[in-house]
Amino acid sequence: MSSSLTGKWTTNWDEVYSSRMGKMTSSIIRDLLKVTLQPEVISFAGGLPAPELFPVREFREACAYVLEHDGQRALQYGPTEGFPPLKEYLAEKVRKYGVPAEPENILLTCGSQQALDLIGKVFIDPGDTILTEAPTYLGALQAWNAYAPRYVTVPLDQDGMRVDLLEDILKKEKPKFIYVLPNFHNPAGTTLARERRHKLVELAAKYGAFIVEDDPYGELRFEGEDIEPIISLHKENVIYLSTFSKTLAPGIRLGWMIAPERVIKKLVLAKQGADLHTSTFVQYVANDICQRGILKSHVKKIRKVYKERRDCMLEAMEEYFPEGLTWTRPQGGLFLFVWMPEYIDSEKLMHKALEEKVAFVPGYAFYPDGSGRNTFRLNFSCMGPDRIREGIRRLGNALKKEMSGKG
Amino acid sequence: MSSSLTGKWTTNWDEVYSSRMGKMTSSIIRDLLKVTLQPEVISFAGGLPAPELFPVREFREACAYVLEHDGQRALQYGPTEGFPPLKEYLAEKVRKYGVPAEPENILLTCGSQQALDLIGKVFIDPGDTILTEAPTYLGALQAWNAYAPRYVTVPLDQDGMRVDLLEDILKKEKPKFIYVLPNFHNPAGTTLARERRHKLVELAAKYGAFIVEDDPYGELRFEGEDIEPIISLHKENVIYLSTFSKTLAPGIRLGWMIAPERVIKKLVLAKQGADLHTSTFVQYVANDICQRGILKSHVKKIRKVYKERRDCMLEAMEEYFPEGLTWTRPQGGLFLFVWMPEYIDSEKLMHKALEEKVAFVPGYAFYPDGSGRNTFRLNFSCMGPDRIREGIRRLGNALKKEMSGKG
Repeated sequence: MSSSLTGKWTTNWDEVYSSRMGKMTSSIIRDLLKVTLQPEVISFAGGLPAPELFPVREFREACAYVLEHDGQRALQYGPTEGFPPLKEYLAEKVRKYGVPAEPENILLTCGSQQALDLIGKVFIDPGDTILTEAPTYLGALQAWNAYAPRYVTVPLDQDGMRVDLLEDILKKEKPKFIYVLPNFHNPAGTTLARERRHKLVELAAKYGAFIVEDDPYGELRFEGEDIEPIISLHKENVIYLSTFSKTLAPGIRLGWMIAPERVIKKLVLAKQGADLHTSTFVQYVANDICQRGILKSHVKKIRKVYKERRDCMLEAMEEYFPEGLTWTRPQGGLFLFVWMPEYIDSEKLMHKALEEKVAFVPGYAFYPDGSGRNTFRLNFSCMGPDRIREGIRRLGNALKKEMSGKG
Repeated sequence: MSSSLTGKWTTNWDEVYSSRMGKMTSSIIRDLLKVTLQPEVISFAGGLPAPELFPVREFREACAYVLEHDGQRALQYGPTEGFPPLKEYLAEKVRKYGVPAEPENILLTCGSQQALDLIGKVFIDPGDTILTEAPTYLGALQAWNAYAPRYVTVPLDQDGMRVDLLEDILKKEKPKFIYVLPNFHNPAGTTLARERRHKLVELAAKYGAFIVEDDPYGELRFEGEDIEPIISLHKENVIYLSTFSKTLAPGIRLGWMIAPERVIKKLVLAKQGADLHTSTFVQYVANDICQRGILKSHVKKIRKVYKERRDCMLEAMEEYFPEGLTWTRPQGGLFLFVWMPEYIDSEKLMHKALEEKVAFVPGYAFYPDGSGRNTFRLNFSCMGPDRIREGIRRLGNALKKEMSGKG
């Protein structure tokens, strides 16, 4: 053997990737973000919370306090399950929403995205059937594609998942679990009606599927009354996910999941192998902010600003969008969703829109089967009213161009 | 359908876990930690860095600076690849060690544990063969067991992996990759000799396997000269992992991997689905600490303290341990490893040791095939000399009891 091999021979990397990598693609949103970094483009494509609302001062105070009083512990390894006082805080918090959770039911995660990945790891064997809404959260598809499930979908309308269609699908498809975003759905902006939640829980039980309830936006309700979470209706059959990303800040990557204790134990095993535990320091800081009661007043502030922005976007859409479109009027959250006539393709529209210096996410990205080509998602949380108005005006122009002479 | 189903029927959870969960078990170390939380037990079982050395003040200053000057960006979503200035810092840092890395070759991870999981996800199909040292790092086995590989092992001696045995194994077993801990091995405390590194790189190339070089402790050398990292010998065929866990603090969960750019792109796809990205805030803070040049002087301090503790442990072992044992004399890191006569079982010894109020990790945990039952690992980083001496005295007693009347 000659040492000249070194430096010449290298792995043919394309031949050694696992077969699951064939199913993994980059998020169209992350790719779009690169285009929309140009400052002259008004982008409704991202899902960024408004950074000017981040509680920066409170973070500074919390970091100083934690490092002064508990620095060594906050910087050391910690339990996989999460920092106990933060688990206690979260358990108490969700009990107020009617979820009878104890700290043993809670696992801290690196954002909700990690919770989705852990669910994939713990539950999905290749070929398992998963039922999602159509459209559904793109990040869930990205997490789960690695585990090679088969997706079946149920459509949604202004009241969320079409639960009236669910029984036939459950009977025929026998999914392992049902994935649902009940509040201010991403991307659809819809909220699952109360009576549909009850029906969903009953049908899931009847047909032997558990429910994954993904609720990152539930606290960001601008109007109307809170509806009890699905997990409060049947906590033994629901895994519930939420996050600090939309209420405190996404850059800390801190979320949590609630499940029966024996399920948490399995999720903990998977998390141990995935990253040992979530940052101790970040958990100490978030706990300090929470314990000082800042979260509640802060969320009020966010709600007020996001409501103004939603109102501004809806008004501008009325003014600038052509006839023949429908859209959701979300009662909270960060997104709304637009349905165009069937003959309009949102990807073609996107190119027209980029010419007008405005961006959105084509809706097909949110459909597991790639349908929904006549839809798109708009984000209203991360810019002020003037920019929203101007962006919608530009998008109206693109829509008019794309729709003229067709149909 | 009666609504009385609700609350009665629940998923039979034991029937819905994925088949990979059958391969996942809790770390014996995490389980032992619970026993050793009793303050009267002197525990050499963990792998904790010394918390009294954490640069707490520097973290306070960095948090204050980052939040004052860049708070909104530090708390917002960020790129999956990592915070660009930190990638540039790391690229420059490793170039000093002879690794010609550019920022595009770097991916920031939630500790090295996540890097191991991403490698599993991107490369391991069920049944793929992986070659590890025996013993090897337990966390790697935990991460990879989820992907159901087949392990083959090569033994190590005081100079690290027995590279002289490697060619026969590679020829016969055709592993997809070779996993190696070159510096101050966990658990063995050994360092891979320079000429073995060259031979390893040549053999890997000849037999079409790539190398995963796991180097969490490389900067913690107490004595002897640095040996160039394996990746510097053949960067197109090596994935290199390291972490801030042992040099700054493990509680921030911040590590990095270096690989050819096209491999980084695949790892980024997997990370996007796993957790979107590593905490922006943590990366800003670590970057601030690094840019201020604190890391280098801080690492010097750690080296000095850990060397004293290693010396203390080695001296006490000479004094208190019975005849018939051998152990490593690590030139750095946190661990040393003990070989006992074949007739002694380390699990039985552990029970004797716990009676004496001292703990360690039985070595079989580090062998993929569960062999190595006559070995154990000792950690010397996380307590002062008096406690180390007393712990080794107790362990000597347990050893004498277990070895008397046998053999």
